[in-house]
Amino acid sequence: MQNDFIYLDHAATTPVSESVLSAMMPYFSEKFFNPSAPYFPALQVRREYEEAKNEIAKSIGAKSDELVMTAGATESINLAFSVLANFAEESNEILIASFEHHSVLEAAKKYGKIKFINVKRNGEIDLEDLKNKISSNTKLVSVMLANNETGVIQPITKIAEIIKKEQSQRVAKGDFTPIFFHSDASQGIGQLDVSVGRLGVDMLTINAGKIYGPKQTGLLWASRNIELLPQIVGGGQERGLRSGTENVPSVIGFARAITIAQKHRKKEVARLKELKDISVSILKNNFTDDELIFIGNHKKQLNSHLSISFPGIDAERIIFSLEAKGVLIATGSACAANKGTRSKTLLSMGLTDKEADGSLRISMGKLNNPENIHRAINILAEEVNKEMERIGLRSHK
Amino acid sequence: MQNDFIYLDHAATTPVSESVLSAMMPYFSEKFFNPSAPYFPALQVRREYEEAKNEIAKSIGAKSDELVMTAGATESINLAFSVLANFAEESNEILIASFEHHSVLEAAKKYGKIKFINVKRNGEIDLEDLKNKISSNTKLVSVMLANNETGVIQPITKIAEIIKKEQSQRVAKGDFTPIFFHSDASQGIGQLDVSVGRLGVDMLTINAGKIYGPKQTGLLWASRNIELLPQIVGGGQERGLRSGTENVPSVIGFARAITIAQKHRKKEVARLKELKDISVSILKNNFTDDELIFIGNHKKQLNSHLSISFPGIDAERIIFSLEAKGVLIATGSACAANKGTRSKTLLSMGLTDKEADGSLRISMGKLNNPENIHRAINILAEEVNKEMERIGLRSHK
Repeated sequence: MQNDFIYLDHAATTPVSESVLSAMMPYFSEKFFNPSAPYFPALQVRREYEEAKNEIAKSIGAKSDELVMTAGATESINLAFSVLANFAEESNEILIASFEHHSVLEAAKKYGKIKFINVKRNGEIDLEDLKNKISSNTKLVSVMLANNETGVIQPITKIAEIIKKEQSQRVAKGDFTPIFFHSDASQGIGQLDVSVGRLGVDMLTINAGKIYGPKQTGLLWASRNIELLPQIVGGGQERGLRSGTENVPSVIGFARAITIAQKHRKKEVARLKELKDISVSILKNNFTDDELIFIGNHKKQLNSHLSISFPGIDAERIIFSLEAKGVLIATGSACAANKGTRSKTLLSMGLTDKEADGSLRISMGKLNNPENIHRAINILAEEVNKEMERIGLRSHK
Repeated sequence: MQNDFIYLDHAATTPVSESVLSAMMPYFSEKFFNPSAPYFPALQVRREYEEAKNEIAKSIGAKSDELVMTAGATESINLAFSVLANFAEESNEILIASFEHHSVLEAAKKYGKIKFINVKRNGEIDLEDLKNKISSNTKLVSVMLANNETGVIQPITKIAEIIKKEQSQRVAKGDFTPIFFHSDASQGIGQLDVSVGRLGVDMLTINAGKIYGPKQTGLLWASRNIELLPQIVGGGQERGLRSGTENVPSVIGFARAITIAQKHRKKEVARLKELKDISVSILKNNFTDDELIFIGNHKKQLNSHLSISFPGIDAERIIFSLEAKGVLIATGSACAANKGTRSKTLLSMGLTDKEADGSLRISMGKLNNPENIHRAINILAEEVNKEMERIGLRSHK
């Protein structure tokens, strides 16, 4: 199947890599024991599960007992926001970037009043707007590490500084109400240095399903002072924060995936850069600056992501014609809530409806190489050219 | 590894069967697409995911759109109890069997006042006690289909009748407050006919990890009139009731597992019966009625389960000595919350501390056959005999 198409939607999900799958395999049918059972083979599984958590923790500069393994990023985000359950809902003010994923938006709605941090045309959140909107009622700020649509890397350490400043001002006034900083790092792991200490966050969400690990496998890292309210209660697994028999194969796979991602990070970033350069060069050769917009600050963008727009073109049509030629690509993020709506991310950046409607997200990864990127982007250029001619945006060359 | 030991703890978890694993495999690395993505291979994955849900639904006599796929039974139970979020907490009275799993107990605590339904010495819940305790404030009754420790099958249809009667009495008084009936069927699928219509439940929890399917894979079936409060919000998957990218391989595996379980049900039940008969006969040959108690109504017990007690013996010691001889067995249910405590189930049945301390749960399944059961139970008898001699309960024969 992998030979029949060129996949340009790695940001939606990635295949489980061979190495990850082979790490997982023994835990389905051989080392299948319930890690809470009392006999040695089960204790051995428990040990290997804990070792996997340790390995994951190390890769983000954290301790294993600060991790809660979850069934995916969405559950992790929901759990992160539960920190607000310690406060009265009417006193909770939550600041999130306008482009946050539905999971952040919906989780925030449960706990308080949401204020949206503006996003600049270059795809970064507006730090001045954050400074203006942060208030003595702000309890939680959530900004993703890199945007899932544009790939623009967010100024996380600068946000952390602003939050710390607000916190000190509160303390100076004798107000010890905490303010927490959460970041969804689902995009970016494997390309960025995601050390929780350096980032300055209090909570971090990671998703195995975007780094060649298994789906519905994620985690929440939370610093020790954070009091979470367990969302799924029962047998007391994960230090009582997430009950349910542990998903041993998935966590083993997650550890392998994140270890590989970190180990090959620099090489992979350089490789993706090459693929992106090829793409940009083909596109620039085919379209004028009026016809094609490159979206987002390319100096602060994941090399996996190329966000572009052909204003006036209906990108949905392009997706279908590309698919007919074996190129798989999407407009925005793939989730049930986004069906038939314009990209929130792009509109928040101030793009016009026309620009948003003409936008495509190319997200590259391990299924790509210079040869298939060259082919795919040439097909893309051809299809857009045809469409431009069809609708009279351009006359036949 | 499977040849090195005899596994007698199928109730704690089961290995993923070869057939299930081979059904799952293509969905890790080949059909890996996000089911919400717009291109054909992703739509195909969506279709296969929905077909799997259909297959699962059919196997319990339900419709696919009444299922919410969850990351395991614990999450399913937590979601089931969310039906109580529609009512004021102080008005919520919840009736659960004294032997319910921690996940039911903890989920119940979140939503109201718990009343425990007594359990009879034979391991069945006391229907008279239920009739006495059910009141006009009762909103939810939760009783597991078959007890995880004793294997005793509960009188689910009779409970449903009692609940329906209470409901009609309310309606006659002009009180339209509903009363819901939930059952955790994690134990029993594969041996019992689990048709939601026939059972008369409103909500049913099923766990793939106990029927040779993948771990952390479960579902909640809820009849159409039930309004659940989503516990994990975000992208709106599972009709908005459980957000997060679908766990495609796991749900495909779940479908295969439940289909096999249903198809081979009668044959497997007969096979387990044979294994149980062998076990009982060996045990009866080795121990007197004073030395060995068979726990639970054996006429209403899963054939997989054999719950026994050697009063005066420390069962933990037996477990260790059995393990040294390659026999893996447990005392009670395997979960973090049970460590170092006496079995709630057995105490609720009125067993003495001594009887509870001497208890073992033998749970048989696909890893067993007449030969290895013969061997294992003989080893068990030998080890208990030795221990009885050691502590002076019996003189050397």
